[in-house]
Amino acid sequence: MRAVIRRNKQLVCDQIDELEPGEGQVLVKTLACGICGSDLHALHHMEHMVEVSRRGGGGTMNFDPTADTVFGHEFCAEILDHGPGTTGALKAGARVVSVPATMTAGGVELLGYSNRLPGGFAERMVLTEAMLLPVPNGLPTDAAALTEPFAVGAHAVAKAHLDPNSVAVVIGCGPVGLAVIASLKARGYGPVIAADYSPRRRAAAEALGADVVLDPAKESPHGRWEQLGVPMASAAQKMMRMMGAQFGRPVVFECVGAPGILQNLIESSPAGTQIVVAGVCMETDRIEPAVAITKEVELTFVFGYSPEEFAATLDDIAEGRINVSGLVTGKVGLGEVADAFVALGDPEAHVKILVEPVR
Amino acid sequence: MRAVIRRNKQLVCDQIDELEPGEGQVLVKTLACGICGSDLHALHHMEHMVEVSRRGGGGTMNFDPTADTVFGHEFCAEILDHGPGTTGALKAGARVVSVPATMTAGGVELLGYSNRLPGGFAERMVLTEAMLLPVPNGLPTDAAALTEPFAVGAHAVAKAHLDPNSVAVVIGCGPVGLAVIASLKARGYGPVIAADYSPRRRAAAEALGADVVLDPAKESPHGRWEQLGVPMASAAQKMMRMMGAQFGRPVVFECVGAPGILQNLIESSPAGTQIVVAGVCMETDRIEPAVAITKEVELTFVFGYSPEEFAATLDDIAEGRINVSGLVTGKVGLGEVADAFVALGDPEAHVKILVEPVR
Repeated sequence: MRAVIRRNKQLVCDQIDELEPGEGQVLVKTLACGICGSDLHALHHMEHMVEVSRRGGGGTMNFDPTADTVFGHEFCAEILDHGPGTTGALKAGARVVSVPATMTAGGVELLGYSNRLPGGFAERMVLTEAMLLPVPNGLPTDAAALTEPFAVGAHAVAKAHLDPNSVAVVIGCGPVGLAVIASLKARGYGPVIAADYSPRRRAAAEALGADVVLDPAKESPHGRWEQLGVPMASAAQKMMRMMGAQFGRPVVFECVGAPGILQNLIESSPAGTQIVVAGVCMETDRIEPAVAITKEVELTFVFGYSPEEFAATLDDIAEGRINVSGLVTGKVGLGEVADAFVALGDPEAHVKILVEPVR
Repeated sequence: MRAVIRRNKQLVCDQIDELEPGEGQVLVKTLACGICGSDLHALHHMEHMVEVSRRGGGGTMNFDPTADTVFGHEFCAEILDHGPGTTGALKAGARVVSVPATMTAGGVELLGYSNRLPGGFAERMVLTEAMLLPVPNGLPTDAAALTEPFAVGAHAVAKAHLDPNSVAVVIGCGPVGLAVIASLKARGYGPVIAADYSPRRRAAAEALGADVVLDPAKESPHGRWEQLGVPMASAAQKMMRMMGAQFGRPVVFECVGAPGILQNLIESSPAGTQIVVAGVCMETDRIEPAVAITKEVELTFVFGYSPEEFAATLDDIAEGRINVSGLVTGKVGLGEVADAFVALGDPEAHVKILVEPVR
């Protein structure tokens, strides 16, 4: 079958071996699969990603980054066939989504970051039947394929110590930031302040329900804290709390992942702020702990999502609590994936591009 | 009256103006006042401390670091006289402790870091009557003077997301680390693993109830995680949790405050660890966010304590839940403070030195 293969740090469209569903697995046809920012980074820097993952505890990305890999972990697929030991609860023809991990006799393979199983940039995949979620009738395939990136936002929001009065600031409105905004609004939190240099991304943030959308080149997102009743100085805040002032804990979601942003947020946020770090900065970064201490900042690094958060996100999309219309700005076949990777480098050009391996 | 003054980055013993208790204030005689690690740092680097504090929100350290300052914020004192508008609930002769801050018409003065009011390295101070806590009968003055440094530990523990099964690791057994160990044990948490290069500090950690005390030169404190049933790899941990394994969230208390330690802890701690940062690193530090993200580490920077935590700490010491015997390893008069600052540079020489301004 055809697939887009990462080989020698390039994307090549080539044939790969057909798949046979193993014990507990189903064979699926990939209907649509999003291109993730991690894929863009991994194309050139997979060796470093694997090394960081290994130092971070190993299990998640345990493969040879110099060997062939088929990317794609944000997919919606259709069941073709059932392997041995399956229940067949979902029949051939059913549309499904899944956490991108397949159980095999040799362990868990992370789809999209594996040498042994292809991800969604291939015509077919094998998935674990027990992890499949049926796509509700009437939910378009494109929308279902966005479950995975939006689950990242659900997880980040679940890790935030938000209360009903909290002001949430989202720094960066790429796919991660948009997912955070959507999850915040789906859970009823607000006001949500969103910041991005890109007009297109700001428009997407607004469409997903951000209450205030800013261009940081023109206005600091933190300038709004005080307008919203959150005092900036830690002494002022402590005193206001002693006097019984009710304001929720400020929470900032860092969704950019570039060096320097953490220290900038430590300096510019009110005392007591929780900074949920969802943007993945792959470089060494510098912070000044003494400033963070004086303000009693909390840096909560978050990663991935639980199966429950993934399922809840599909439900949010299906029930309209997250409105994903307009976010898919392009669709390509396997032969155009390499060009799409380049196009995604420009934030004005696209929000999310889906790959349709079978056209 | 006599005081030890920080002047031109040196400590000089000299006369300062007598004090008059203002509205709501009492005049006290300083009975004993501990030398804090912050004082050692501030002697040479106060300008930087003030600048960092200003960037951290301002209020706490708003004074001229080039002008005269009288250090000392860990004190026990005796009431001499009452100013106007006081209730006199505690009479002259009563021994008291207080959060080291005095309310004045011009604002809050942080005792020990003020140009306008002296801290405890002076024969007398003015305190705010409403903030005084009486020292219970039978509690020695030396023990009462340790309320402030131990309150720092109470606050750090209060900010930790500990549960009854949590394993707590304390890195560094200087005054901050010892206070954390004492508070953990006073609250019934354990096992507590403590690490310090200094034999004297390890002995103090053991006396305060640390369950395992290690020399990091010989054994990594993190080697004990797995012995205590905490799996190191994030994948292993996630899988064990899915299988219903019950182990508390690991919590590390960083009580050293030197560059490089945060990244070392991020790399060596189990996935999901909360690192409570109580040691004040005054330099820029480097971290690798991607490793912290992969492990979902939480960095909780903590500072100071609340008045309630301060009062609870006095009670812990008075009721024997925190046993401070043996921690005061030296007492000096005002004339010997400069030498004591030098002596405290050697962790083998001392744990805590108290200044007795009136001898």
